[in-house]
Amino acid sequence: MMKLALLGFGVVGKGVYDEVQKRSDMEVSKVLVRRHIEEIAPIATADIAEIVNDPAIDIVAEVMGGLHPAYEYICAALNAGKHVVTANKAVISAYYGELTELARKNGVALRCTAAVGGGIPWLVNLERCCRLDTVTEVGGIMNGTTNYIMDAMHAAPVAFDEILKKAQELGYAEADPSADIDGDDIRRKLTISANIAFGAQLSEEEIPMFGIRTVTDGDIAAFQSRGYVCKLIATAKRTEQGVAAWLEPTLVDAHALEAAVPQNYNLISFQSEYLGRQSYFGQGAGRYPTASNVVQDCLDIAEGKRAFYTDAAQLMTPDNSGVMHAYYVRTDKADAWLEAITAETLGDGVITKPVRVAQMLPWAKANLEMGNPLFIAAIR
Amino acid sequence: MMKLALLGFGVVGKGVYDEVQKRSDMEVSKVLVRRHIEEIAPIATADIAEIVNDPAIDIVAEVMGGLHPAYEYICAALNAGKHVVTANKAVISAYYGELTELARKNGVALRCTAAVGGGIPWLVNLERCCRLDTVTEVGGIMNGTTNYIMDAMHAAPVAFDEILKKAQELGYAEADPSADIDGDDIRRKLTISANIAFGAQLSEEEIPMFGIRTVTDGDIAAFQSRGYVCKLIATAKRTEQGVAAWLEPTLVDAHALEAAVPQNYNLISFQSEYLGRQSYFGQGAGRYPTASNVVQDCLDIAEGKRAFYTDAAQLMTPDNSGVMHAYYVRTDKADAWLEAITAETLGDGVITKPVRVAQMLPWAKANLEMGNPLFIAAIR
Repeated sequence: MMKLALLGFGVVGKGVYDEVQKRSDMEVSKVLVRRHIEEIAPIATADIAEIVNDPAIDIVAEVMGGLHPAYEYICAALNAGKHVVTANKAVISAYYGELTELARKNGVALRCTAAVGGGIPWLVNLERCCRLDTVTEVGGIMNGTTNYIMDAMHAAPVAFDEILKKAQELGYAEADPSADIDGDDIRRKLTISANIAFGAQLSEEEIPMFGIRTVTDGDIAAFQSRGYVCKLIATAKRTEQGVAAWLEPTLVDAHALEAAVPQNYNLISFQSEYLGRQSYFGQGAGRYPTASNVVQDCLDIAEGKRAFYTDAAQLMTPDNSGVMHAYYVRTDKADAWLEAITAETLGDGVITKPVRVAQMLPWAKANLEMGNPLFIAAIR
Repeated sequence: MMKLALLGFGVVGKGVYDEVQKRSDMEVSKVLVRRHIEEIAPIATADIAEIVNDPAIDIVAEVMGGLHPAYEYICAALNAGKHVVTANKAVISAYYGELTELARKNGVALRCTAAVGGGIPWLVNLERCCRLDTVTEVGGIMNGTTNYIMDAMHAAPVAFDEILKKAQELGYAEADPSADIDGDDIRRKLTISANIAFGAQLSEEEIPMFGIRTVTDGDIAAFQSRGYVCKLIATAKRTEQGVAAWLEPTLVDAHALEAAVPQNYNLISFQSEYLGRQSYFGQGAGRYPTASNVVQDCLDIAEGKRAFYTDAAQLMTPDNSGVMHAYYVRTDKADAWLEAITAETLGDGVITKPVRVAQMLPWAKANLEMGNPLFIAAIR
């Protein structure tokens, strides 16, 4: 009987609790929680020390989210010889090197399958591929909130703000939607995926991104008139320069697999030398899907899995100077550089000649920061 | 150092050999092969006894295909205490119960990930889901040859025979294409998937099927005029009657994920209670993709995996009486039953009212056997 402690009892924590309740091979022994919750009152504690010092607890499942005190609690658990499972992409993305090293030093497992892709077993399959094959590219549609918004905007003309409000009402978007629509959430998932795929250690802040906050129904209509579908797509790949990594709205052919990803689903892919392209489709968030991958990690640990996905964690800086493609750009402001690279017009915007990702994304970000509500989309 | 014996050195066998050559944790010690192959001459043998009686060999990888003598060789290896890995869907589908029982009795592993989905880690992920969740449905696009043909017929008007010939030239279809285009290959993969998903033991012969041999460019044009894409789709699901299982051409919305599956790719899905729908996309065949899953099975065995995907194997008969949907039917022959269920016409065919799968597939099969080249397609 494996004994678990849960740190947190929110959406995912309650999901893990429910799923474990149905099993005979594990049980939740303690829950770290501040407020009183009748259902778990006998096993609740507000003191992390009661958990990390309890020799009966095998696995600490951190499902509280946020960087602090999650990071400190995970360190304490690892140092106390507990295996740790987490669904927390922020903490794994920010402290990848430190935490994997600490787990190794203490001879315990650290697993985070639910941190990328919610209920999709993306990281375990990426890990599986890496033990045999060379992965050359990872990425895809890694955020359900933004896919829900983009999908709805293609189904019928609707303003961004209006559909965002609907997504918030349905619980698909947070009250503060920034982390989803500006790309921070995806960037964390891309960082973790690239780290595992390439044995790298990237700083998420160094990955350039452009979100969907400024997209209009006019942009979507222009894309559809050319047979394009616009999706927010993250990419990390091996290049001659090392590793390239970025995320941006991307125009794909209406017949592409990405174009068919509906609602709040995710589609995460890798390319590898032996397997070519392989893609994983499913619910990238939600209580029971996400909780399932937390419990699966616990089962993997029970079966003896100790490695943290990859042995290597080489410090690397993303270099996007070797990646070029055409862009759609819509801006109200005259710009000499944009004029120089313009190939043709499309709707209210222009299509550029091929441009380096390393040039376009900083230029677009600088424009946004100067208050110019421009929109850009890569053309695949 | 894990020592492997290969039974067979064809497309997959040579792929396994190449992939193992690059590893330091395993080696191919013996290869069962009749003809002389210079590359493996020092380790070649034509005598299965030399392999099963060699105490140094840990795993026997059967990649020869066909029912016999593959079945006898697998039994001999299991009885000699060897772990067995196979890519052979025919033998696993036909002898599922016997072989899993024999592996259990001998305390060895029997794994067959490459038998369903080629390079897609479908069976391991299905197994992973089953250890936590209740799977309610499995299936999808499980054959690359037929998907290649259907994809090409949607891209431009082309006769079935012409595109089949091209698929044969490209090596996507066999000289005798029956097993692919009539559905036998898919039926084996569906049987194995359903057995694992539902803890069942189905007889493949009891699963009704209808292939794509009789589809015409006129049918495809009619489907496209309604916004449909036609794919050959296999389905097995839990129903009130037990388990339903069948495969048939199926009309899906042009925006559905299945509609976006190009060329010879596969897309295999399950539905489960916690996860909802999850789909796996990739190369369902080919030397190195298929060989990869054989080597991955060996790595799983090296890590201690012993279970054969599921503990249960309850004898069940598929019952499709509880599953109903509308069909497209094109036939030259007047038929009173068809007239009675016809709702409207479409192209050279008709659209029926909802009909039981248990009625339509036997009726269509009987018509085919009487020499009526009819075509049917379920409407999803």
